[in-house]
Amino acid sequence: MAKSSNKTVTRSRAPKPRIPATEGDDTTITALTLPPEPLSPEMAAYFKKCEEKLGFVPNVLQAYAFDSAKLSAFAAMYNDLMLALSGLSKLEREMIAVAVSSHNRCYYCLVAHGAAVRALSGDPALGELIAMNYRAARLSPRERAMLDFAVKLSAEPWRVEEEDRAALRRVGFSDRDIWDIGAVAGFFNMSNRIASATDMRPNSVYHGQAR
Amino acid sequence: MAKSSNKTVTRSRAPKPRIPATEGDDTTITALTLPPEPLSPEMAAYFKKCEEKLGFVPNVLQAYAFDSAKLSAFAAMYNDLMLALSGLSKLEREMIAVAVSSHNRCYYCLVAHGAAVRALSGDPALGELIAMNYRAARLSPRERAMLDFAVKLSAEPWRVEEEDRAALRRVGFSDRDIWDIGAVAGFFNMSNRIASATDMRPNSVYHGQAR
Amino acid sequence: MAKSSNKTVTRSRAPKPRIPATEGDDTTITALTLPPEPLSPEMAAYFKKCEEKLGFVPNVLQAYAFDSAKLSAFAAMYNDLMLALSGLSKLEREMIAVAVSSHNRCYYCLVAHGAAVRALSGDPALGELIAMNYRAARLSPRERAMLDFAVKLSAEPWRVEEEDRAALRRVGFSDRDIWDIGAVAGFFNMSNRIASATDMRPNSVYHGQAR
Amino acid sequence: MAKSSNKTVTRSRAPKPRIPATEGDDTTITALTLPPEPLSPEMAAYFKKCEEKLGFVPNVLQAYAFDSAKLSAFAAMYNDLMLALSGLSKLEREMIAVAVSSHNRCYYCLVAHGAAVRALSGDPALGELIAMNYRAARLSPRERAMLDFAVKLSAEPWRVEEEDRAALRRVGFSDRDIWDIGAVAGFFNMSNRIASATDMRPNSVYHGQAR
Amino acid sequence: MAKSSNKTVTRSRAPKPRIPATEGDDTTITALTLPPEPLSPEMAAYFKKCEEKLGFVPNVLQAYAFDSAKLSAFAAMYNDLMLALSGLSKLEREMIAVAVSSHNRCYYCLVAHGAAVRALSGDPALGELIAMNYRAARLSPRERAMLDFAVKLSAEPWRVEEEDRAALRRVGFSDRDIWDIGAVAGFFNMSNRIASATDMRPNSVYHGQAR
Amino acid sequence: MAKSSNKTVTRSRAPKPRIPATEGDDTTITALTLPPEPLSPEMAAYFKKCEEKLGFVPNVLQAYAFDSAKLSAFAAMYNDLMLALSGLSKLEREMIAVAVSSHNRCYYCLVAHGAAVRALSGDPALGELIAMNYRAARLSPRERAMLDFAVKLSAEPWRVEEEDRAALRRVGFSDRDIWDIGAVAGFFNMSNRIASATDMRPNSVYHGQAR
Repeated sequence: MAKSSNKTVTRSRAPKPRIPATEGDDTTITALTLPPEPLSPEMAAYFKKCEEKLGFVPNVLQAYAFDSAKLSAFAAMYNDLMLALSGLSKLEREMIAVAVSSHNRCYYCLVAHGAAVRALSGDPALGELIAMNYRAARLSPRERAMLDFAVKLSAEPWRVEEEDRAALRRVGFSDRDIWDIGAVAGFFNMSNRIASATDMRPNSVYHGQAR
Repeated sequence: MAKSSNKTVTRSRAPKPRIPATEGDDTTITALTLPPEPLSPEMAAYFKKCEEKLGFVPNVLQAYAFDSAKLSAFAAMYNDLMLALSGLSKLEREMIAVAVSSHNRCYYCLVAHGAAVRALSGDPALGELIAMNYRAARLSPRERAMLDFAVKLSAEPWRVEEEDRAALRRVGFSDRDIWDIGAVAGFFNMSNRIASATDMRPNSVYHGQAR
Repeated sequence: MAKSSNKTVTRSRAPKPRIPATEGDDTTITALTLPPEPLSPEMAAYFKKCEEKLGFVPNVLQAYAFDSAKLSAFAAMYNDLMLALSGLSKLEREMIAVAVSSHNRCYYCLVAHGAAVRALSGDPALGELIAMNYRAARLSPRERAMLDFAVKLSAEPWRVEEEDRAALRRVGFSDRDIWDIGAVAGFFNMSNRIASATDMRPNSVYHGQAR
Repeated sequence: MAKSSNKTVTRSRAPKPRIPATEGDDTTITALTLPPEPLSPEMAAYFKKCEEKLGFVPNVLQAYAFDSAKLSAFAAMYNDLMLALSGLSKLEREMIAVAVSSHNRCYYCLVAHGAAVRALSGDPALGELIAMNYRAARLSPRERAMLDFAVKLSAEPWRVEEEDRAALRRVGFSDRDIWDIGAVAGFFNMSNRIASATDMRPNSVYHGQAR
Repeated sequence: MAKSSNKTVTRSRAPKPRIPATEGDDTTITALTLPPEPLSPEMAAYFKKCEEKLGFVPNVLQAYAFDSAKLSAFAAMYNDLMLALSGLSKLEREMIAVAVSSHNRCYYCLVAHGAAVRALSGDPALGELIAMNYRAARLSPRERAMLDFAVKLSAEPWRVEEEDRAALRRVGFSDRDIWDIGAVAGFFNMSNRIASATDMRPNSVYHGQAR
Repeated sequence: MAKSSNKTVTRSRAPKPRIPATEGDDTTITALTLPPEPLSPEMAAYFKKCEEKLGFVPNVLQAYAFDSAKLSAFAAMYNDLMLALSGLSKLEREMIAVAVSSHNRCYYCLVAHGAAVRALSGDPALGELIAMNYRAARLSPRERAMLDFAVKLSAEPWRVEEEDRAALRRVGFSDRDIWDIGAVAGFFNMSNRIASATDMRPNSVYHGQAR
């Protein structure tokens, strides 16, 4: 039934061998050439800890490594937001990261934090769903309200008003939680843009993690 | 460095066991209750062929199965566009499917056709890239022009003009190829909307394919 | 009162004879040169039926005639959606066609299906209204809900959710009707894009029909 | 081929007699109830002139008639812009009116000024084209540049810069012409909004004019 | 803590003397060269009155001065809308002017009418708020509804419907007030575009007024 | 000329005394109630330094003061980006801050950083211009390219590609400068969202600074 009879069409070309999509991603991390400086002792220790714990240093940290002051400030903020005590679970914070990065279509952050959602939830499809369209996921009212706020804040921050905060409170979020939702969403609106500004590439190892 | 000293924050909650994100996706395919009718012999044979070749019947076909005339028309058009002879390779057609579905943030099509890009290219990361932001992928000029046309046609069809066709011709596409690019992009602009209108869920098996 | 006294303005130029806006529309149907192939017997019969019934073959069918498999698949889907039994009247389906085509600013479809709305409703101004801004038309709640769904599905398919389907059910649409609304809206999101991709021109006869 | 075999579908409903789409448009001109005041002698003469020349008083003037100062100011500006000497022909000015009103999807202005384009050009299809998507019309470079400027000025006035004026100069427009293009485009951006704010209805006679 | 140790960074450059941002704004009012014509006696008197009352002639009037018919029509409409009796206070009308001009990012109108809001309210920060994001201002329900209507009318006039008028009525606006809100919002949608089309510059004196 | 004779209009209401727009801005800094914790010694010293140098502690720092770890991370990043050595002058960095905040319509950041542009440039109107529409400012090619990149990165980060970086290099920016432009633009995309999420209010003293 689907046979084309058009004689003018040349045969479908066999797929040519392609350069792998991740080629160079672990060695040429950004499109900028930034002369490296030696890591500060504090940051050298931090990189070592990453290698021990994750098996690699996330490319975003390597991208910042040309300047220890910038690297240190970024790492401090990241670790506080994503790892410190919060009324939001680590998975919830990663879900915000992915939903915001999906709005901004940020390749680096979708790959790295999509892997984190898969790992923390133990549910590979959940990572896909949040990366593709969080509205299609079967979320709890709490999760849905959280992501609605984060994505509206990303898309139209000028329209976020008291009613938006009230919607968060209605599903049980405290004022401190609201701060954290706003701060995590804000942080990835920053990171997404630094990644896009520099064509930052994710470590290739993320792709296969927690599938 | 990332320790929060705020005493008012309650302990991060351990992730609760979640309902798997794909639960029900293989049994409740859409949000609509449509009384089934018996498959026509032709369509029954087609379903059998799917099971033999793929190991399952794609949910989109099952969704259409309530009406054999609709199912038959959909299958005929799909098979012609995606499988028949064309100046576009099957991988190229799937890349269009994914880039358009990414623009439209269609969960069903991103899952099903993302798997196809991974399988046809043998490159899992390529599927991710096109699903997330095709502009971040290292594409050939031919591929890039093809996806630029398909995505502009999805986003702002009213602005597609002769210059857009000329850009395709400059990288070697024939008029027949331009038809096929437009037709495949058009088809997924249809499918994406039928999937969104009905909350169509992809077969769960796609998630793990060709990783 | 409206006399301009500015001496530097040259006299308003008399309108020069213009090439008629429809010139060539009935002979050069698209911007693509596609070598024709002989129509299959089935499609030749279909074209003949069009001439008998309508007095002409719609240009979209002639555009597809370079490939009988594609033409056949398109005609089968079109006829099922627009002419087969449905809980939606033919006029309602044409109203969806026009509202979607207005969102996408598709010249071909607005002309052809605008004529259909005029003919089926016997109300020329209704065709204008849906083509210009359906929100300005005095519609029944059923019609309004139907077009709101179809246009949201066209503009932001990723935001269509259960509440949107619920709004259709509230005005009396069945699940089968919802499928049909989504399918017709989806179909014209495809057709609009194929028309824009190829600069498809409507038969000039449509312009004056049912005025 | 298009026969639906689904037994659950009820018969397509015959189109019910509808209230004509233009019902009330000539008597209830806006959604606002504004107590009329007697026309000033100047405006009474103007209305009489309209009736003699056009056969009717355009509804927009009747809408303004509740306040002679407002009516007079509107009529003065309108007549200067659209009828006084200008480097732009009257048809060109009406084309701007329609292209801007299409961008703003203004029912009143599309109906009234679409009729004017049809009448001044003697080409009914030209009126349709500009109302639907001016980019699909076969325009001279001068006309195209003029409408591109007017529509960009409507959509994103904050992005109009020297390069946009330069594009007008390149096709032969003088600085005075540029003023007129901007002023006519600006005027319809005003009128479109007053019409939308008040649900202004066009005289029903426009629909059939110059078809 | 904020010391950069990157040796490759050159010293921050001392700010070079810049050309003042307002240079030329009082002498080269637009980007168009329009041969002046003598003012009509009526308009000459009007300019004289401006100088006496304001100390200067607003640049928009000087821009129009190349054609007395245009100038007269503009001044008549402006004065009626902004200064004549209305259910809206002059401050309210200026607030609409600024909120609309903020949506359209119109430099001329934000400067000139921002000064008017500061002057009429005696509250410099109110002028800033409306120019930056009126949603952040502490407005009365009446003011908020008025600006919501005016800005929606500016952004998406095609979506303004009866419910939008009803929201105005609920906070006490009469039908005549609704006309005035729509007319003032419409007027600035015109003026913003004429200013953008011509790169109109505001009198430099506005910047420091009512701070 | 502008006298309205409409008898139904009630007298323009005299402006009522309004609550000042900045009332409460210095005491109720955000819409969130966050129990304070004692400042760390390092942050207490930092606040003291702010008071000595600026005469006040910026509200954003007070907003963060509920958690010293967060405050410290924010301050470290802010100070590095805006005050440390860079190929961008401090004024250039503040111009980016304001242009980004204008895109996002962030009241807090426009007020605080608008004052900084005024102060650093010694040109009050320059601050207005960047806050209103940087495209209307007379910028050097370097400044214009810098702000074009920053605003595109804010509006559509997914479309920033090599050509955008090339445009920066063409006007003399180094790769390190490109990093800094992206990082400052990213930072304000974060801050704008934290301010919007919490309704953060600027210190009232900013309004009058450097006018």
